[in-house]
Amino acid sequence: MFFINNKYFLKNILMNNLNRLLLVLLISFSCTEKKATLVSEDTNQHPNLILTNKSISEIKSHLGNIPVFDKTLEIAKLEVDAAIEKGIDVPMPKDMAGGYTHTQHKLNYANMQKAGVLFQLLEDEKYAIFIRDMLLEYAKIFPTFNRHPEPRSYATGKFFWQCLNDSNWLVFTSQAYDCIYSWLPKEQSDYLNKTLFRPYADFLSVGNPKYFNRVHNHSTWGNVAVGMIGLVMDDKELINRSLYGLGKSDVDLNEKDNDGGFIYDKDGKAGFLANVDSPFSPDGFYTEGPYYQRYAMYPFLIFAEALQNKKPDLKIFEYKDGVLIKAVDALLNLTDADGEFFPLNDGQKGMSYYTASLVSAVDIAYYYGSQDARLLSVAKKQGTVQLDATGLNVAIALKERKEKPFVKQSMELSDGSKGDEGGIGILRYNNEDETMALVYKYAAQGLSHGHYDKLSFSMYENGDEVLQDYGLSRFVNVEQKNGGGYLKENKTYAKHTIAHNTIVQNETDHFKYDFATGSKNHPEKFLFDVSDKNFQIVSAIEKNAYPGTEMHRTMIMVKDENLEKPFIIDINKIQSNKKNNYDLPYHYFGQIISTSFDYNTPKILATLGSKNGYQHLWNEAEGTVNAESIQFTWLNNRRFYTLISATDKTDNIVLARIGANDPEFNLRKDPSIIIRKKNTQNTVYASIIESHGTYNPIKEIAKNAYSNFSTIEVLSDANNYSVFKIYFKSGKNKILILSNLENSKDKKHSIKIHNKSYSWVGPYYYN
Amino acid sequence: MFFINNKYFLKNILMNNLNRLLLVLLISFSCTEKKATLVSEDTNQHPNLILTNKSISEIKSHLGNIPVFDKTLEIAKLEVDAAIEKGIDVPMPKDMAGGYTHTQHKLNYANMQKAGVLFQLLEDEKYAIFIRDMLLEYAKIFPTFNRHPEPRSYATGKFFWQCLNDSNWLVFTSQAYDCIYSWLPKEQSDYLNKTLFRPYADFLSVGNPKYFNRVHNHSTWGNVAVGMIGLVMDDKELINRSLYGLGKSDVDLNEKDNDGGFIYDKDGKAGFLANVDSPFSPDGFYTEGPYYQRYAMYPFLIFAEALQNKKPDLKIFEYKDGVLIKAVDALLNLTDADGEFFPLNDGQKGMSYYTASLVSAVDIAYYYGSQDARLLSVAKKQGTVQLDATGLNVAIALKERKEKPFVKQSMELSDGSKGDEGGIGILRYNNEDETMALVYKYAAQGLSHGHYDKLSFSMYENGDEVLQDYGLSRFVNVEQKNGGGYLKENKTYAKHTIAHNTIVQNETDHFKYDFATGSKNHPEKFLFDVSDKNFQIVSAIEKNAYPGTEMHRTMIMVKDENLEKPFIIDINKIQSNKKNNYDLPYHYFGQIISTSFDYNTPKILATLGSKNGYQHLWNEAEGTVNAESIQFTWLNNRRFYTLISATDKTDNIVLARIGANDPEFNLRKDPSIIIRKKNTQNTVYASIIESHGTYNPIKEIAKNAYSNFSTIEVLSDANNYSVFKIYFKSGKNKILILSNLENSKDKKHSIKIHNKSYSWVGPYYYN
Repeated sequence: MFFINNKYFLKNILMNNLNRLLLVLLISFSCTEKKATLVSEDTNQHPNLILTNKSISEIKSHLGNIPVFDKTLEIAKLEVDAAIEKGIDVPMPKDMAGGYTHTQHKLNYANMQKAGVLFQLLEDEKYAIFIRDMLLEYAKIFPTFNRHPEPRSYATGKFFWQCLNDSNWLVFTSQAYDCIYSWLPKEQSDYLNKTLFRPYADFLSVGNPKYFNRVHNHSTWGNVAVGMIGLVMDDKELINRSLYGLGKSDVDLNEKDNDGGFIYDKDGKAGFLANVDSPFSPDGFYTEGPYYQRYAMYPFLIFAEALQNKKPDLKIFEYKDGVLIKAVDALLNLTDADGEFFPLNDGQKGMSYYTASLVSAVDIAYYYGSQDARLLSVAKKQGTVQLDATGLNVAIALKERKEKPFVKQSMELSDGSKGDEGGIGILRYNNEDETMALVYKYAAQGLSHGHYDKLSFSMYENGDEVLQDYGLSRFVNVEQKNGGGYLKENKTYAKHTIAHNTIVQNETDHFKYDFATGSKNHPEKFLFDVSDKNFQIVSAIEKNAYPGTEMHRTMIMVKDENLEKPFIIDINKIQSNKKNNYDLPYHYFGQIISTSFDYNTPKILATLGSKNGYQHLWNEAEGTVNAESIQFTWLNNRRFYTLISATDKTDNIVLARIGANDPEFNLRKDPSIIIRKKNTQNTVYASIIESHGTYNPIKEIAKNAYSNFSTIEVLSDANNYSVFKIYFKSGKNKILILSNLENSKDKKHSIKIHNKSYSWVGPYYYN
Repeated sequence: MFFINNKYFLKNILMNNLNRLLLVLLISFSCTEKKATLVSEDTNQHPNLILTNKSISEIKSHLGNIPVFDKTLEIAKLEVDAAIEKGIDVPMPKDMAGGYTHTQHKLNYANMQKAGVLFQLLEDEKYAIFIRDMLLEYAKIFPTFNRHPEPRSYATGKFFWQCLNDSNWLVFTSQAYDCIYSWLPKEQSDYLNKTLFRPYADFLSVGNPKYFNRVHNHSTWGNVAVGMIGLVMDDKELINRSLYGLGKSDVDLNEKDNDGGFIYDKDGKAGFLANVDSPFSPDGFYTEGPYYQRYAMYPFLIFAEALQNKKPDLKIFEYKDGVLIKAVDALLNLTDADGEFFPLNDGQKGMSYYTASLVSAVDIAYYYGSQDARLLSVAKKQGTVQLDATGLNVAIALKERKEKPFVKQSMELSDGSKGDEGGIGILRYNNEDETMALVYKYAAQGLSHGHYDKLSFSMYENGDEVLQDYGLSRFVNVEQKNGGGYLKENKTYAKHTIAHNTIVQNETDHFKYDFATGSKNHPEKFLFDVSDKNFQIVSAIEKNAYPGTEMHRTMIMVKDENLEKPFIIDINKIQSNKKNNYDLPYHYFGQIISTSFDYNTPKILATLGSKNGYQHLWNEAEGTVNAESIQFTWLNNRRFYTLISATDKTDNIVLARIGANDPEFNLRKDPSIIIRKKNTQNTVYASIIESHGTYNPIKEIAKNAYSNFSTIEVLSDANNYSVFKIYFKSGKNKILILSNLENSKDKKHSIKIHNKSYSWVGPYYYN
């Protein structure tokens, strides 16, 4: 079929390689003889990128006896067989994400990658033919146009609207190409190298320096795409370009990237290794956040595997103290009880460790790391493996029931390439099926996907969001919604400070929503101590978000012996050189059950403000608290929650809801409660967040529908110490003293409050 | 302990019954001899209400060998043992629903009922003592006060704020009392009968005629409470009162009940039998709707079981052609895929067949009905049984794996005691795990819990609501929300026509929201035909909701061979004697993905109207369609839905959201789309509702995000026929012709439209 349809091939190749072609013809036309015998001639023979001759023979010796691997292979076979049945479809690029041509090209690279594996493992030549014929179609149209017709990206691609997707294509297709490289007549691979792959790699690198030369998940994909095809073609120039970025001669040194940064930094760092060095902290936290870390893990790890196979001297898995393996552990810890990633920065909710890139990541981390048996329990849940040596080993280990539970513990993940730019503090509670997680974010800006949300937090119970981080505003790959791309509300709402559970000063954003300023600064960790399971504490300070104002937030997860579940103490201490208005929003879900304060509900709804995200909030109710503390109880997911907060009598409460100025209905209509202090210089917000009860609509029983606390009181708030008193409804009370300046574990403290003396060692007192 | 604390007992009983007391003393004080030997003297010996001596010995012979029964018994034992450990607590009544005294009295009757069973089955006297001591506490305080201090009900109770809950108490406690009746010294039972039970029964009947003498689920509980204790005490007067209502001498014939109806009707019908006769249709549909049917099934069936045991000549299970057993089947069919009841009329969402009253209902229906093996699969899901002969038989059958799947089929349930007052038409689609259900309501008013929602519908997919019936506005038993009672928004929003998916004329309610008018009328069924699984049709006509206007709605579930799932055709034909404004709302969930029409979104939100429920709707967007059809696509629960509707160019679309004038935040903030026709006399709304795609946030794939239809067109709309053309995007199209006057299956039709002739037999043509 190929020989009949592809005139170009006939003309250019047929004449030069008659002998080999006759052999291929014989194989192609011999329907009864489907299995081609593949003889490995030497160790340099392909495949040698991800699959190798050694791993292939190992896998073959186990096939039929490794359930998870066998099942994965069977599904891949069903999918690719269906694609072969359907016929090759390489349309001229036209659509945005979610559209037909976009989806087809995505399908094509996914199917080619699988077909390569099937060809090697099952030895059925139809898979090689499928890849070859498809690649020739790509080679045919590649030279016929300049770029994709949709000019919406800063780096418009070829077959896709953005270079990023073209890099996806090349990362996957390189693996397929490697699998048939030795099977192809040399003239044919030469032709594909020259007509398709080398020009494609050049396009994605020197052709798009703004895309290729950044430190960014996009560039990682670009680097890896160029590196993978470089390894397949043994093209040293491409491999070098991939690892170290573009040469200075390829780049206009004054040009800026998409986010306003230079695309070639003064230290000359770019390329894959720079993308390992810079965005990863020593703990393996990726500064863009887990959603993009998840996306970048595939190129990071698949290229690392390829480098390990072809350039073992590079010792890539030991690079930066083994950060690539640590990153997988970090990422798995950045999930809720259902395995869904915390939507820090631009993160789409619902994305989880069940995604394909995490299957690959878990398998690679298990194989090239320390065979951590906890990873196996994640692999078991995933129920699928990568079809290579790493997946084989995981499948064998699962068969041998070696898995151990992956119990997520409280942990701190530092941010910054040296680990000194703040971080994420996760406080967790695990009790059989009951879990609670508090995610406190005092990390750096997080590159272009960062949000202006210093010292914000989110809270989870059993995989449900209790107090949310909005995440991104985007319907990824839903074509009707801006072609599946970011919606404008991402920039007008989701990234803004008010969209997060943190202090907003004078209704303006942290760093005035300026990316460059945000990128230069980060909060400072003050304390992270989870050594006492019943009193886990994390604390950080932000001095730059609002010049002249220092914000010091401390969050504590307390498990009281008399209460069923832990509660959260949330202390926001603010010191400024002038008077300001402060807003502290809590973005809850569900329905209000009761409030201790009065409020007015307007007959007509107006927005809460005109900019900085406030223009998207309806002011549903407002009231002056007129009391020294408030209680606010709501019901969500059949659970009762209460926010208890110390207030000044003049504080206002605003009940807000997202949805204003949203003509396309792009935003979710979620509610929030905002505690508002006006014309205030120094102050402290002291709150308790409690999950205390359940509602059963079948038994119609409301269990513990009331909070266990009567109030929290600020006894004293000075520069050095802040003192709080927590009143339980049982009559019990507790004193909490925070040392605001000294975080040493060994430091002795002694103060007198209301004529009572308190002495203790370390940064806090609680009794 | 009892003898020491209870001085009353000492004084009044001790002296009269010294011999028996000494025996009891011996048993009570003998800790090593816990098992009392119960000798059955004759068949009239107690228990004989629910448990009987015969069933007890049968159960005992199986104990330890009937897993579901054994487990249920074990849980009951754990609960009651814990209650005994905690000690008896019979507080003076004080709180509303959800409050402490309310909850404690509920717990008391539940524990007493179980303790009675445990005493009989386990022969441990501590359970009898627990019941006796608690009853004596009740008897002590019963005479000391008149009524519960909260005067919020039309029938304020004793231990509870409403007689209804007191009736619950008596229905359960009667069973406990029966279990210890023969064990108690006669003087003690005489004392309880005289001091507590007979006065309590009188209080609930002659003391509250407005409560007792209605046809209503409340009265059913009252009737059964009086009947059950009457059977225990063998009090013929009470039994008679229970079955036939109050005598004329007990009632002021001119007094009206809570809803404005006479409390003693002209035919003299009241009491339990009237409550079986009147609200149940011959199909077993209960006119108040499934939520209240669920609530009433327990007294209906437990009393029927008691009557069958003590008054077998009454043949209660054959009464009205066996309607009580049919009612259980009807109720199970009025659930979604998760077993949750359709929230017709006042229904709380989330209530399901896992509720205790349905465990009892399923077991009783299995035992006294035809041993329907489908019921066993429901019992299996419930995982618990009633602790009597019925539960024993279900447990044995489950052990023998006799269960068959309960596959809910399309069905019509007529309304009205004779089945001639409209009904509910349920169209269903079942395909492995994929299910769809359309619930079309053309039933009667449904007594005081009815909504003004003639010809409304709701739609379900796999247990999720697609287009909702709002249900009730109430947080049952959540004390903070109006003591757990109905919220005022139930009367200002939830019951109103606009809260439902049906036509509103001139922004006024059906029957002008007048209960008496609504109760006199009902829609007329026109057609229900599900014989063709690929074309299931239901149609009904309402002529009285708006005098002078006739509404004829036809809903069709079509399974097209080329589409994955069925789609709904929704035709609303309206004929009036004058021009009106018509609103047709669709109450969807989730987020708008795209609209084919333009609209304006206001900067400030105002309500859609000032009354009839409209005052609770924010007008989020409005536009003139300016086209002959619209498409409206939304995403919910990871599925894409589209509403396609034929329009006049001048039609308006309103995008609304609940929440205005809701100062307590009692309402959910759910959205709706309203198709609005202004100044129109006769018209037809023709729409398609399609579930066509899915979104996977892990794979980030939007599958079939676009509708398969381009449009639906009204080709002709006359008095006798309405003709529609449906255009599929594939290029295919279909003609639908509805006969508006003739519903006979055999009638031949022939018409010419656009010069083309159509001939067919029966009420519709589709090709």
